[in-house]
Amino acid sequence: MSTQKGLQEAGRLVCLGVMSSYWNDRIKALSPYVPGEQPRNQKYIKLNTNENPYPPSPLAIEAITRAACADLRRYPDPSCRELREAVARTYRVRPEQVFAGNGSDEVLAFIFAAFFDRARPLLFPDITYSFYPVYAGLWDIPFQTVPLAADFTLDLADYRRENSGIIFPNPNAPTGRAVSRAAIARAASEQDRVLVVDEAYHGFGSQSAVPLIEAAPNLITVHTLSKSASLAGLRTGFAIGNEDLIEGLCRVRDSFNSYTLDRLAQAGATAAVLDTGYYENINRIVAATRDNAATELTGLGFEVIPSQANFLFIRAPNQQGSGVAAALRERGVLVRHFNKPARIADFLRVSVGTDTEMAVFLEHCAAIIRL
Amino acid sequence: MSTQKGLQEAGRLVCLGVMSSYWNDRIKALSPYVPGEQPRNQKYIKLNTNENPYPPSPLAIEAITRAACADLRRYPDPSCRELREAVARTYRVRPEQVFAGNGSDEVLAFIFAAFFDRARPLLFPDITYSFYPVYAGLWDIPFQTVPLAADFTLDLADYRRENSGIIFPNPNAPTGRAVSRAAIARAASEQDRVLVVDEAYHGFGSQSAVPLIEAAPNLITVHTLSKSASLAGLRTGFAIGNEDLIEGLCRVRDSFNSYTLDRLAQAGATAAVLDTGYYENINRIVAATRDNAATELTGLGFEVIPSQANFLFIRAPNQQGSGVAAALRERGVLVRHFNKPARIADFLRVSVGTDTEMAVFLEHCAAIIRL
Repeated sequence: MSTQKGLQEAGRLVCLGVMSSYWNDRIKALSPYVPGEQPRNQKYIKLNTNENPYPPSPLAIEAITRAACADLRRYPDPSCRELREAVARTYRVRPEQVFAGNGSDEVLAFIFAAFFDRARPLLFPDITYSFYPVYAGLWDIPFQTVPLAADFTLDLADYRRENSGIIFPNPNAPTGRAVSRAAIARAASEQDRVLVVDEAYHGFGSQSAVPLIEAAPNLITVHTLSKSASLAGLRTGFAIGNEDLIEGLCRVRDSFNSYTLDRLAQAGATAAVLDTGYYENINRIVAATRDNAATELTGLGFEVIPSQANFLFIRAPNQQGSGVAAALRERGVLVRHFNKPARIADFLRVSVGTDTEMAVFLEHCAAIIRL
Repeated sequence: MSTQKGLQEAGRLVCLGVMSSYWNDRIKALSPYVPGEQPRNQKYIKLNTNENPYPPSPLAIEAITRAACADLRRYPDPSCRELREAVARTYRVRPEQVFAGNGSDEVLAFIFAAFFDRARPLLFPDITYSFYPVYAGLWDIPFQTVPLAADFTLDLADYRRENSGIIFPNPNAPTGRAVSRAAIARAASEQDRVLVVDEAYHGFGSQSAVPLIEAAPNLITVHTLSKSASLAGLRTGFAIGNEDLIEGLCRVRDSFNSYTLDRLAQAGATAAVLDTGYYENINRIVAATRDNAATELTGLGFEVIPSQANFLFIRAPNQQGSGVAAALRERGVLVRHFNKPARIADFLRVSVGTDTEMAVFLEHCAAIIRL
């Protein structure tokens, strides 16, 4: 039932028990990730995949337009030097501390391939980005999940146990709760393997761990341009960490696909990363819209987890999560509902849209809970 | 020595024996692929990475420019439906028989992950695309190489032995020699595991195996827009095969990175794949330039392997390959020299440029062999 729904959501071909004799055991055992629905028409208010409601930097669009020329006949720079230099300038690190990839998903896939092993389990929260166990399956890495507190707080003290690595998003997804930089600094110093802080949802109020990199050789942060830089369509992400962690990622990349970022993505991402003023402005608006919506939802009787991300994790006062998601969909609003684990089955993850979109969403919420 | 040179060529950071304590055994054991040099300035005649000398279709550039808009805030279509429909129309197959990826390198990486296993060796030629053993290392797949004949002919009868799969480029790289569609049909019917025909260099005179797909459930062809479509900078490739082979690739993709092709690449590639007339025209010119250059080189005393690709594999009459490559570089012409295996150490792979570029190249060749 949950699989069926996931398949419908993804809207594409996924195996339903019939397996080819040509597949090897590795892919027979995989449980692929199912991304949020991308409807082909525009009839929905789309609050289901955490896209930014505001357009990307005009400078990024300009840079892409300039790169759309005859030079496309040439391979891109495999080392993404200009992009890495731009990241280094904006994040106050060195270009050698930056690795760029085809979305933070690819960067994460390389991190799983490079740093975790079979000797001890990888640790991550029980409620978190659902791609982590999928990567673990792809690379055959054992893992243990560490329960969040009842209020979805993540306490890094719970990770003081044998591991081949620790990974968590900060803010966490789909809860939106963040941990402090001080807590991460302490965890990195207590940990002898790699600590990965997935900052996909940074930019809306949380503290970044990047300033800790220099002192923590086992710390690596992961970033995407899909959320705070409003460039989900460009598929660009990066990691920041100690030089030899970055070199490890280069080794995996160069054993997989030498050129992972095309010329257009490199050009657009470079311009976007440098246009910090534009993004600080739109993301301040996103955070204000989020906080207003949280207040309204609380007023309606919803449980609202305090969020530092560009989404809210909410529970209706009197109805099942699946029912509320379906009712919103019927009314033209897409939100994300996760069936698993059971303790979040009644929650919905709602991306922060424009003020107008959120007003429509809130109106429907008010109507649905009165039913 | 050869490693040093490779590193210089790649112009980026690669491990030189110092390994991090944070790397796992997998990456410590990797021997990454080293792509041809991408110089940052324009002072060279660049005949080293098999790029097309002519610009991509103007329709592709237009489509990219249209896609460079506010919609970039949205994720791309993870299934690449429009691109797959375009490929299906041009190649006379069904969209369900098409898989699209971030360059044919990524498609190949997924093929290695999906179809080959540890039970029996994967087979490929001893002289071929040097990324194949790298993929095998990444996914821990045993392989055996099958020697080409002395004249670099590939005879598929040599592959009638136990295997977990067969892969070869057609035309082969770096030799440029192609095998016939009839030979591939016979090999597919005699083979019980997957047969991969890497058609990266198709479009310059060789026969495609795509028409065999319908009758051969174990056959999959791999294609790139980097060579014949003059879009190396766009990083787009695809595979054509039986539906359940394609579904196997989707499973790996969805366990690695759900959205591998950004909106710009999907838009540009879709337009390019449909603009067959433009590309037939420029590639007819490339093939004619190649054949003229082959005649000239033969006249100068070079050994020239008959090529159906957009490059020539040649040996100077009186000098070592490394020396000729270095002399050409000093004169401003980059070509590709491979140190391994030993039997090709004196050969150079020369991409076909414009008639003007080839005239300069031939002039330098004439001068160098007279030294």
